[in-house]
Amino acid sequence: MKVKLISNTPLEIADIAICKCYGNEPHSDSEKVKARINRVANVSKHASTIEHLSYSFDIDGVSRACLQEICRHRVSSYTVKSSRYTLQELKKEHIIKVAELFEPEYDLYQSKNWDIAKKYIVTSDWYEVDLASTKALGELQSLIEDGVPNDVAKYCMPEAYKTSLVMTINARALQNFLTLRSSKHALKEIQELARNMFEVLPQDHKFLFEGIFINEQTNL
Amino acid sequence: MKVKLISNTPLEIADIAICKCYGNEPHSDSEKVKARINRVANVSKHASTIEHLSYSFDIDGVSRACLQEICRHRVSSYTVKSSRYTLQELKKEHIIKVAELFEPEYDLYQSKNWDIAKKYIVTSDWYEVDLASTKALGELQSLIEDGVPNDVAKYCMPEAYKTSLVMTINARALQNFLTLRSSKHALKEIQELARNMFEVLPQDHKFLFEGIFINEQTNL
Amino acid sequence: MKVKLISNTPLEIADIAICKCYGNEPHSDSEKVKARINRVANVSKHASTIEHLSYSFDIDGVSRACLQEICRHRVSSYTVKSSRYTLQELKKEHIIKVAELFEPEYDLYQSKNWDIAKKYIVTSDWYEVDLASTKALGELQSLIEDGVPNDVAKYCMPEAYKTSLVMTINARALQNFLTLRSSKHALKEIQELARNMFEVLPQDHKFLFEGIFINEQTNL
Amino acid sequence: MKVKLISNTPLEIADIAICKCYGNEPHSDSEKVKARINRVANVSKHASTIEHLSYSFDIDGVSRACLQEICRHRVSSYTVKSSRYTLQELKKEHIIKVAELFEPEYDLYQSKNWDIAKKYIVTSDWYEVDLASTKALGELQSLIEDGVPNDVAKYCMPEAYKTSLVMTINARALQNFLTLRSSKHALKEIQELARNMFEVLPQDHKFLFEGIFINEQTNL
Repeated sequence: MKVKLISNTPLEIADIAICKCYGNEPHSDSEKVKARINRVANVSKHASTIEHLSYSFDIDGVSRACLQEICRHRVSSYTVKSSRYTLQELKKEHIIKVAELFEPEYDLYQSKNWDIAKKYIVTSDWYEVDLASTKALGELQSLIEDGVPNDVAKYCMPEAYKTSLVMTINARALQNFLTLRSSKHALKEIQELARNMFEVLPQDHKFLFEGIFINEQTNL
Repeated sequence: MKVKLISNTPLEIADIAICKCYGNEPHSDSEKVKARINRVANVSKHASTIEHLSYSFDIDGVSRACLQEICRHRVSSYTVKSSRYTLQELKKEHIIKVAELFEPEYDLYQSKNWDIAKKYIVTSDWYEVDLASTKALGELQSLIEDGVPNDVAKYCMPEAYKTSLVMTINARALQNFLTLRSSKHALKEIQELARNMFEVLPQDHKFLFEGIFINEQTNL
Repeated sequence: MKVKLISNTPLEIADIAICKCYGNEPHSDSEKVKARINRVANVSKHASTIEHLSYSFDIDGVSRACLQEICRHRVSSYTVKSSRYTLQELKKEHIIKVAELFEPEYDLYQSKNWDIAKKYIVTSDWYEVDLASTKALGELQSLIEDGVPNDVAKYCMPEAYKTSLVMTINARALQNFLTLRSSKHALKEIQELARNMFEVLPQDHKFLFEGIFINEQTNL
Repeated sequence: MKVKLISNTPLEIADIAICKCYGNEPHSDSEKVKARINRVANVSKHASTIEHLSYSFDIDGVSRACLQEICRHRVSSYTVKSSRYTLQELKKEHIIKVAELFEPEYDLYQSKNWDIAKKYIVTSDWYEVDLASTKALGELQSLIEDGVPNDVAKYCMPEAYKTSLVMTINARALQNFLTLRSSKHALKEIQELARNMFEVLPQDHKFLFEGIFINEQTNL
């Protein structure tokens, strides 16, 4: 999984917005800006003031299983790699030899098949599951090779299949996303995504989200 | 796929709302109600007046591939069968015999395996794809039998896997959904869903959406 | 202020939705329905499950000042009496005699002027404010009488001017609305609105919102 | 009215997003970027791809009447000057002499009263309306001077009263806003606002909205 922040609103914009409410003057000192935003948006829960802060993430290599969960967050904008249009990528790829995958004492992780498969599927870190996903991927590739249309072939695609998206979300909705998805009860992959999204935020924005990861840190 | 309408707002509510704007009296005659709603919401494009009409659908047996597309409509509410919690259903099921699926001259559609599989996967109506999905389903079942946790096993689940949801959407958002998803360019399964959602609407609400399907009808 | 509930989704719909997640059976016993909804939506905070419950309110006689606050709730649908189209109502009305309002020892609340004015403005329960609003209303009426277009005349309309709307909101968004607007720090009029909206809810839906008013009750 | 653009997402972000769908490479040539965004978002109506472009406007000196209309656009974020907290500004101001406003042959626009009033109210460009608004403003000021709480006094505030806000909106929602509000049937003031918002957009973003103003331009 690769997560890159490709755009964000400067923090000062939230301060300018907050100053509208009471007719105050925006601060020029960055520590004061942070203190006021924290006081208004986090402590006093006037959370709409940080909706002015927008973040665009380029997210690459998450599974379609994870995508199902990501897109349930409705206050966010998504542009996603279309499986309906891009499955032909498997045609230009080396052939996965499905028969080999059924050999006794086969070692997937040391194989040429895995070198190919891991470009297209997210590892579950569980050997038998990765083996099953690789089999499914091999079957899918063979159907694409045989000219089955993407729209039909995609029905046998394993949910481990990698996708790629641009996601734009404001700071308020991101607080909600990170809170729900950094939970120990969340799917492991989306926990990792949440952590990665937090890591790539600009340093001076991190205080807005830090509280979310505090329990986790004290558990270390 | 089974689509049932389990709740809807009476049409008159939109008329009561429209009458607010100009201080008119709501009609009691149902044809006049329809005529006014059509004039204001559809012709004059004051579309927010039909947001007061809410529909709840019970949708059963659509694929996870289709779910990916459904949930991209953000102005709607979804409660969906959780693959993280329900994959144990495969444990109580008869065993899919995966080895058989590789036999030469195997006829899936006449097999016991297919009797089982078709309860869990949506058919693509393409033999080789259904065969591949059944293989993937068999592998998934075997992992569940072996005690692999749902959260890990789900990575090899084929997107043909059936899911179930309640979807609540207002008339304005439904117009948008049906317009986009009844297009000839849409995924076949979601075209069928759109058509089914339209079919189960109350008769006196259908005029709101009829225009969407007109091109299709004249093509018959 | 008059608040009427003109439509609502039956409570069972939320139970049917919740049962989707885990593959449970909906309850037929209404106490069990309530218990499960409370457990899932309120205690476990799976709040999207009650978005399937939609309420339509007919709200009459709130001020334009209050409307400014109501419409800041974006997850809701509004159809509102248009001041751009309805100000002619003042033309058919008895004339407010503005000069009288400046007389020393004038008693507004005992006057004919107030009998007219109180049909169009919300009382602030503060004599001098109501007097000022009545003056402004009188000036507005006189401009309308003189043929000034609504779109121009409305600029001098006092925010006490009464409006009327249909508002449709789901149970999750209504919880948020009632929480914010029943606070002692909220505008008095919107506190009253929040309380009235709660009062007209169906008895078997009230448990969803009861916690919100508990502090208030213990203060009695 | 003063409209300033205080932040915006660079145009390239929409191109990066669009490239996700089909696995294309983003352009570096700015004309090609514009051509592709136009083709996908405007011509092919894949409008969600420009939701990644976010604009923050600092809007000063629009009326509360106009604010009522602005805030009906729900896919946008607002932080607005609070009348509940800022009416004390009238206390620090020179006193509007209300009695003078009733003098025969009074010339408001040449008066000291108007010098004060025009800081607080938007002119309707209709003498009698501005006079009525100034009277209402004078009454309001006198109540504030007398210590009436803002929350009560605001009921007699004329809708011409000036407000100030930060508004953040994405390109898709902005297209909708500008289309509806640049119409000849819209309130004059919001037409002016729409035009001003367009004018302050970055040059290389204007092509996204230009079609909206074309009819108007050919009328010149």
